[in-house]
Amino acid sequence: MKKLIFTALCLSTISSISAQQALWGGEKVKSPEINPDNTVTFRLFAPKANEVTVTGDFLPPVSVETPFGTQEVAGVANLIKGENGVWEYTTPAPLAPELYMYSFAVDSLRMMDPANVFMNRDVATVTNIFLIDEPGSRAHNYKVNDVPHGTVSRVWYDSPGLNKKRRMTVYTPAGYEDSNESYPVFYLLHGAGGDEEAWIALGRTAQILDNLIAEGKAEPMIVVMTNGNPSQEAAPGETSEGFVLPSMDVSRMNAGEFETSFPDVVNYIDKHYRTKPDKAHRAIAGLSMGGFHSLHTSKLYPDMFDYVGLFSAAIFPFAGRDQAPVYQDFEGKLKTQFEKNPKLYYIAIGDKDFLYNDNVKFREILDANNYPYIYYESPDGHIWKNWRIYLTEFAPRLFK
Amino acid sequence: MKKLIFTALCLSTISSISAQQALWGGEKVKSPEINPDNTVTFRLFAPKANEVTVTGDFLPPVSVETPFGTQEVAGVANLIKGENGVWEYTTPAPLAPELYMYSFAVDSLRMMDPANVFMNRDVATVTNIFLIDEPGSRAHNYKVNDVPHGTVSRVWYDSPGLNKKRRMTVYTPAGYEDSNESYPVFYLLHGAGGDEEAWIALGRTAQILDNLIAEGKAEPMIVVMTNGNPSQEAAPGETSEGFVLPSMDVSRMNAGEFETSFPDVVNYIDKHYRTKPDKAHRAIAGLSMGGFHSLHTSKLYPDMFDYVGLFSAAIFPFAGRDQAPVYQDFEGKLKTQFEKNPKLYYIAIGDKDFLYNDNVKFREILDANNYPYIYYESPDGHIWKNWRIYLTEFAPRLFK
Repeated sequence: MKKLIFTALCLSTISSISAQQALWGGEKVKSPEINPDNTVTFRLFAPKANEVTVTGDFLPPVSVETPFGTQEVAGVANLIKGENGVWEYTTPAPLAPELYMYSFAVDSLRMMDPANVFMNRDVATVTNIFLIDEPGSRAHNYKVNDVPHGTVSRVWYDSPGLNKKRRMTVYTPAGYEDSNESYPVFYLLHGAGGDEEAWIALGRTAQILDNLIAEGKAEPMIVVMTNGNPSQEAAPGETSEGFVLPSMDVSRMNAGEFETSFPDVVNYIDKHYRTKPDKAHRAIAGLSMGGFHSLHTSKLYPDMFDYVGLFSAAIFPFAGRDQAPVYQDFEGKLKTQFEKNPKLYYIAIGDKDFLYNDNVKFREILDANNYPYIYYESPDGHIWKNWRIYLTEFAPRLFK
Repeated sequence: MKKLIFTALCLSTISSISAQQALWGGEKVKSPEINPDNTVTFRLFAPKANEVTVTGDFLPPVSVETPFGTQEVAGVANLIKGENGVWEYTTPAPLAPELYMYSFAVDSLRMMDPANVFMNRDVATVTNIFLIDEPGSRAHNYKVNDVPHGTVSRVWYDSPGLNKKRRMTVYTPAGYEDSNESYPVFYLLHGAGGDEEAWIALGRTAQILDNLIAEGKAEPMIVVMTNGNPSQEAAPGETSEGFVLPSMDVSRMNAGEFETSFPDVVNYIDKHYRTKPDKAHRAIAGLSMGGFHSLHTSKLYPDMFDYVGLFSAAIFPFAGRDQAPVYQDFEGKLKTQFEKNPKLYYIAIGDKDFLYNDNVKFREILDANNYPYIYYESPDGHIWKNWRIYLTEFAPRLFK
């Protein structure tokens, strides 16, 4: 009765590969290959192509002239065709530890690397990713390591303030499920065009928190990643609108709805998780629009957060449009907030960020009033590389 | 002090689009466009291409001769080049409601649709997806609808039986967090090459359960999607091995480790969730290798599950290799299981499945012994379309 199904399974695998080649298709090459010296080799099987290039943030950027002035763009490198139809490029030098993104172009047509299933979506653009790791490096925090792992949940909550059910991503630290302890909460907000998937995917939040907590560098904490777009229930594809292409929409950014409705989130979390529900055990930080949200939410509710982080933050509301009460009396609200002595006010930005000057102006206000804050300036501009860096800098400062 | 940052943001958006065009790149076209009559238009901007085709399971399959006999493969359609460099294809007829997958080929090079960020990974192959919806259709269950949503969590648990920490995906139904009730548990297992991401992504488990529960067709239940590969801690990319290309490895399928260690999963779930921890409130089902696991786990532990589902299941262990005690005394164990009167034994398979004959043989054993079971036969073969169908058929039969 026992039967040789090994052959059947093998045949099935082979023949279905053959049969479905049109759909699954393609020769198997290894790409990217991270060589022992941390140079990286990219490969693509494309026998009919005339030109294959790779672009990504692992290549030195180049300057180009645009109508808006000189801009840095990602560099481009040519793959060289081998006799077997496999194009190849190896970086001339080892790459520094970092999470990198890249894509190919075949005869000018942008495409993913078919040999690499690991990708990130940023707004409506998908790129392949790879990680150069080195124990002890900052990028080692972006890697899944052999440490206790937290739980990552997609949770729906009721937001009366926005009159809808909304989705958020919640990280609970390793050990949460096996303890009766209460935990502090860190609210971590994305930028324009992002959603509740942005920090967990592009920001590597679970990996960073797992690693920092395991090393004793950060306190165990709950991290709550909301959807910062008041018009959305959830990320594109996760709502009844179906598979709608993600886009960047800041049209409601002046309305103050995100900030005013924020207690809906805090109330849900405090009710459904074992939290320490007080100012001393709450942090809020965000990138770009999320930094704007962090700034204005924390001064709107000055008793809510003892830790505030602005990562490449937009500071001021749009002029020339009605501004919600949230944004009025900017300096008065800030005064009230700082009179209550938040334990940490943290500002981080890249020296090439388009919001750099706004942050200079904001720091001038803080300086003029002797409001204490920590300032961290990094190279580069408005990019995820910087936001991961800021998270690894900010999280260890919380709840200590 | 308030400052016009609207312009800055706009400029930044535009210039960063311009600046990063090499990386983000590509003209914007809408693809796929689901037309009002449910025909679908695919578009690709590829001015230098000589030939652009689309392939996918929305096209009628075609038969080809292979060394293993006649095989059905996905059909291929040609896109036609327009004057603007945009290639286009519209299906000649409306498509039936279904979740479809597709990819393009440009001068024979397979690529994703750059205008569609929605994709699924099946083992090491990524395809784009789109959904044709129609209220009342089965496929309507695969869509996120405006109904209460459950929570989906990635959880790490300790498996002493496999001597490692392992990752699983847990669905808790809408309302779980706001009640004190206990719930039945459905263990849902993937096939060879899959992992704990397979059912939630390709199987649309959360959408199907949300919808069936909201319509009153299925009982609220917890669904636990384990990783069925005893050698793995978690899905590729989610372990300390880094971004390793997924592959199909059934080399340990005869060892019986998955089945023998299954109480580790059940114990974790019963300890950490509000479950009804008895046979009457536990179901186990799986596809292909996961059906094999369901069959052998449920007869190894005949007091554990009252509901068993085999979806396109492998039935018999590999011959010609040592077989773990799990698989020995096949008919004796089955007799013990059926003497304990499971409430549902369910077998589903496609009429073109390569495991069809094994399932015929298995049903002959069941019939010869008058063991009751439900049999559901569908068209097509060993494909996700069928497994989603079986889930929508099986889940409503549970815990009633």
